[in-house]
Amino acid sequence: MNNQILKLGAIVFDNFELLDLFGPLEMFGILKEKIEISLISENNKIIASTQGPKIVSDITFSQTPNLDILLIPGGLGTRKEVNNNNLIDFIKATSKKVDYVATVCTGSALLAKTGLLNKRNATTNKLAFDWVKNLNPDVNWILEARWVEDENFFTSSGVSAGIDMALGLIERVFDKEIAEKVARLTEYIWNSNKDFDPFVNRCH
Amino acid sequence: MNNQILKLGAIVFDNFELLDLFGPLEMFGILKEKIEISLISENNKIIASTQGPKIVSDITFSQTPNLDILLIPGGLGTRKEVNNNNLIDFIKATSKKVDYVATVCTGSALLAKTGLLNKRNATTNKLAFDWVKNLNPDVNWILEARWVEDENFFTSSGVSAGIDMALGLIERVFDKEIAEKVARLTEYIWNSNKDFDPFVNRCH
Repeated sequence: MNNQILKLGAIVFDNFELLDLFGPLEMFGILKEKIEISLISENNKIIASTQGPKIVSDITFSQTPNLDILLIPGGLGTRKEVNNNNLIDFIKATSKKVDYVATVCTGSALLAKTGLLNKRNATTNKLAFDWVKNLNPDVNWILEARWVEDENFFTSSGVSAGIDMALGLIERVFDKEIAEKVARLTEYIWNSNKDFDPFVNRCH
Repeated sequence: MNNQILKLGAIVFDNFELLDLFGPLEMFGILKEKIEISLISENNKIIASTQGPKIVSDITFSQTPNLDILLIPGGLGTRKEVNNNNLIDFIKATSKKVDYVATVCTGSALLAKTGLLNKRNATTNKLAFDWVKNLNPDVNWILEARWVEDENFFTSSGVSAGIDMALGLIERVFDKEIAEKVARLTEYIWNSNKDFDPFVNRCH
């Protein structure tokens, strides 16, 4: 796997959370020679984050090639997108084909809606925990976790936890040395222990 | 100052570093009721980050209203932009009018080019330290710092350090309680000590 360029696709939708998307994409993006990033949206248009800044998607659902990694950010927009069948269907079909699926924050609500997380361990944002849990109680939602790995499904806690998870996924795909190098190049203080969750008692 | 909505403008240019921009903007953007964010570019167009994802600027230099905070990200694009007189002139004129100027990574190279950092303390990315220092040796460049505050000039070390600095600036503008709340809401493990720099001996 180390000799080919991996295709990473990140789903984007209105009212996504800025750092849910761009924290992980910074880490993956440092490995430009190993990973190619595409932003994927339902329709080809300008998309606004909850924080204001707007982005441009690279491709639509129908234009998406075979991917190796699917990244699903969270944000307020997930409240609407959980009812968007086109998006949920795309996530379901794509998740079955890729090597890894990674969600940040309430991105796990979208993945849970597909049913693919049923009976699996997963986590989500502390502040939205009950909403996500009620959306699909058949998932084994874990409250205390920076991120959770269940086979090829990586789900992270809120916002910044996605950066720690992205480095964990880089470790899985490549090795720890490369993950630590990415952290060093971005001067990021990596919480590399997925079970160390300093926010478990503060936000719930 | 707490009762008005502050205007924060972030300068964007081709080959900016994703997290330099969106790490701080996530933190400021959580305070939507207190801070309004605009992305400012020389020409109104789509701008590509070094990592690939593209963004849309909100306004051009000439459309920019009076700002309270100016944010300058870094990235490979700064190598070209230090020679862009329009951009340097805009940074110089704007920096004189705002309450705070904040730079991330090699964003400090652009600010240093204006001369406004002369005889002031500042820092920058560890990997680009010598390039930035040679660009303007009249600045007192500090190697060991997560970020540096000199009056209303905030300059951070590489990439992720910008998030810690943004919270430091939120503390200065508002108070520590609000900065800690933003960190908690984004599940960010804040290194709130600007002098604690774990990368000083690893990247230089």
